Amino acid sequence: MRTRAAVALEAGKPLEIMEVELDGPKAGEVLVEIKATGICHTDEFTRSGADPEGIFPTILGHEGAGVVLEVGEGVTTLKPGDHVIPLYTPECRECPSCLSGKTNLCTAIRNTQGQGLMPDGTTRFKMLDGTPIYHYMGCSTFANHTVMPEIALAKVRDDAPFDKICYIGCGVTTGIGAVINTAGVEIGSTAAVFGLGGIGLNVIQGLRMAGADMIIGVDLNDSKEEMARKFGMTHFVNPSKLDHSVTQEIVNLTKTERDQIGGVDYSFDATGNVKVMRDALECSHRGWGVSVIIGVAPAGAEISTRPFQLVTGRTWKGTAFGGAKGRTDVPKFVEWYMNDKIEIDSMITHTMPLEDINKAFDLMHAGESIRSVVIY
Amino acid sequence: MRTRAAVALEAGKPLEIMEVELDGPKAGEVLVEIKATGICHTDEFTRSGADPEGIFPTILGHEGAGVVLEVGEGVTTLKPGDHVIPLYTPECRECPSCLSGKTNLCTAIRNTQGQGLMPDGTTRFKMLDGTPIYHYMGCSTFANHTVMPEIALAKVRDDAPFDKICYIGCGVTTGIGAVINTAGVEIGSTAAVFGLGGIGLNVIQGLRMAGADMIIGVDLNDSKEEMARKFGMTHFVNPSKLDHSVTQEIVNLTKTERDQIGGVDYSFDATGNVKVMRDALECSHRGWGVSVIIGVAPAGAEISTRPFQLVTGRTWKGTAFGGAKGRTDVPKFVEWYMNDKIEIDSMITHTMPLEDINKAFDLMHAGESIRSVVIY
Repeated sequence: MRTRAAVALEAGKPLEIMEVELDGPKAGEVLVEIKATGICHTDEFTRSGADPEGIFPTILGHEGAGVVLEVGEGVTTLKPGDHVIPLYTPECRECPSCLSGKTNLCTAIRNTQGQGLMPDGTTRFKMLDGTPIYHYMGCSTFANHTVMPEIALAKVRDDAPFDKICYIGCGVTTGIGAVINTAGVEIGSTAAVFGLGGIGLNVIQGLRMAGADMIIGVDLNDSKEEMARKFGMTHFVNPSKLDHSVTQEIVNLTKTERDQIGGVDYSFDATGNVKVMRDALECSHRGWGVSVIIGVAPAGAEISTRPFQLVTGRTWKGTAFGGAKGRTDVPKFVEWYMNDKIEIDSMITHTMPLEDINKAFDLMHAGESIRSVVIY
Repeated sequence: MRTRAAVALEAGKPLEIMEVELDGPKAGEVLVEIKATGICHTDEFTRSGADPEGIFPTILGHEGAGVVLEVGEGVTTLKPGDHVIPLYTPECRECPSCLSGKTNLCTAIRNTQGQGLMPDGTTRFKMLDGTPIYHYMGCSTFANHTVMPEIALAKVRDDAPFDKICYIGCGVTTGIGAVINTAGVEIGSTAAVFGLGGIGLNVIQGLRMAGADMIIGVDLNDSKEEMARKFGMTHFVNPSKLDHSVTQEIVNLTKTERDQIGGVDYSFDATGNVKVMRDALECSHRGWGVSVIIGVAPAGAEISTRPFQLVTGRTWKGTAFGGAKGRTDVPKFVEWYMNDKIEIDSMITHTMPLEDINKAFDLMHAGESIRSVVIY
């Protein structure tokens, strides 16, 4: 079949809207009509050429929602008409990682996915001239139709709006999941969130859900404060306006008469800046502070600290897709959204047709959007 | 009173054996006759001048065992005749850290201890000319008698030999505790231990106790292999004899037909070398590997890695005194020793009188001892 897609022909160039060929689903695969897709910093990381593993031409996009049109041989858990959210982290429930019970990082199709291929080592997309187009993060939601493995699709309830729940396919789950799955924040905790973009806001609402007492937001941009407070932030710190370090400020904010050491129980980096990752670790509490890296750092960048920071009881962790097991957890997140337990609508600041997708990248760079969503 | 001590008069010089004055215990303090003390790398770190926080003159030593001679006002948990192990990490059971249930790093006397003082801000030791001598890690077991806070003494059973259980005051507890308290190793785990000195051997016996299936020891010195195998090591790697990286070797050793990713479930650095700390992290398993830093790094040295290592599911932690709560856990370790659950005797390779304590540092540098113990 033919479908319409925004194709990244080469690194650093705007996406081009064009007709492409799409082969039908092979065994274990599913054809999905994408109804909406968010545009995420990770798409831009690859589009711009900063991603050393980027492969072109490709169809980007990994934060979508849609409807199953057709299933391949042997597919048993999905049928035409099912509403689904694509998963860039699949959940096969059979590999050593899935069965470990310790991680969401399913390895069933890791090698081919990393090479922009379906599990059989080929692509379903091609140009009208026959040139293969690579898949992206196993999803390629910047196409109106895509083919995905059954294990990389979460079935969700039919009455949830595509243009909102697509955000659960990445940002919402990453932020909230970092709090509830990776950090395991307890009621009454103190926390600091570095970076108040889309991920940071979702970390904040995760902390509110988890019952944190003190939620300190950190951003260089004062204009982020108002929105973050709506999501549950209790204290705002702009490091550029301090005459001391941000870690010292957070220690001061968290010191009490009883606890003269200070530091937050949990901290989260949602910036991708390795220096900020260090601040996040070092502002966490001696003895038990847990710091979680969410942001994606530039290629080759390294984090560092004195080992004394860890020897005195801090733990440094990271999270991918918020530690969520997609097929199990994503439907739950959709339920939570539909039951007003989590908020999404106000974070979707811009919507547009596929033709205008390059504007979404402009809005991202200008810091004007929290999330832009393409509605097909 | 007067007692005999090995005094570090200044950084980098041999210790000097001399008579010193010792004031009796003040309120909340206890006078202890030290019967035996181990000589640890941390003593040498300070003696040599490498420790930027070293204060001189001081009486080093923090790995002792002895008998209570006298208790100060208000001391209720100890009485003359009690056998005790000094704790450089006290356990007050009242500070926010003790009550958190999340850390062993009691903060009750942290500030004064770090300055070489008793909790009231003074020293009990002085030279015969009246010059104060600083305490060390709150213990100063290189003196035949010392004064310590009640909260920094673990009462242990009376029939345990001082010249063996003194090692529980640091090395044994640090190594075994890193496994059972900090890492929480489960039965059937795979593990790698970097550095097969005294701490490394205790990590290995901790792993054996915890039921690890595969215990990989890593050391540049082949002569360490035999002893480590006696304590439970199942595989030995000498990185200097590989034509590939030690992380690759450990991944290869742990790959199975079913798990093509490889890596150990738990890794431990017992070297203090920051490059080795990185290897230890990076040889741990994607998705769930936990790496624990035990070694003390040189002043100013920093650990580093790509954040991707953490984002893909590895956790970087550290441990001090093996995460053990001294008054609670040390008596238990002594029981385990007396019941042959843990082995100490073969690790005490040299004993000597206090007069010969400088030989212990020579043996340490020559790599000839696992542990030297001074018997008073």
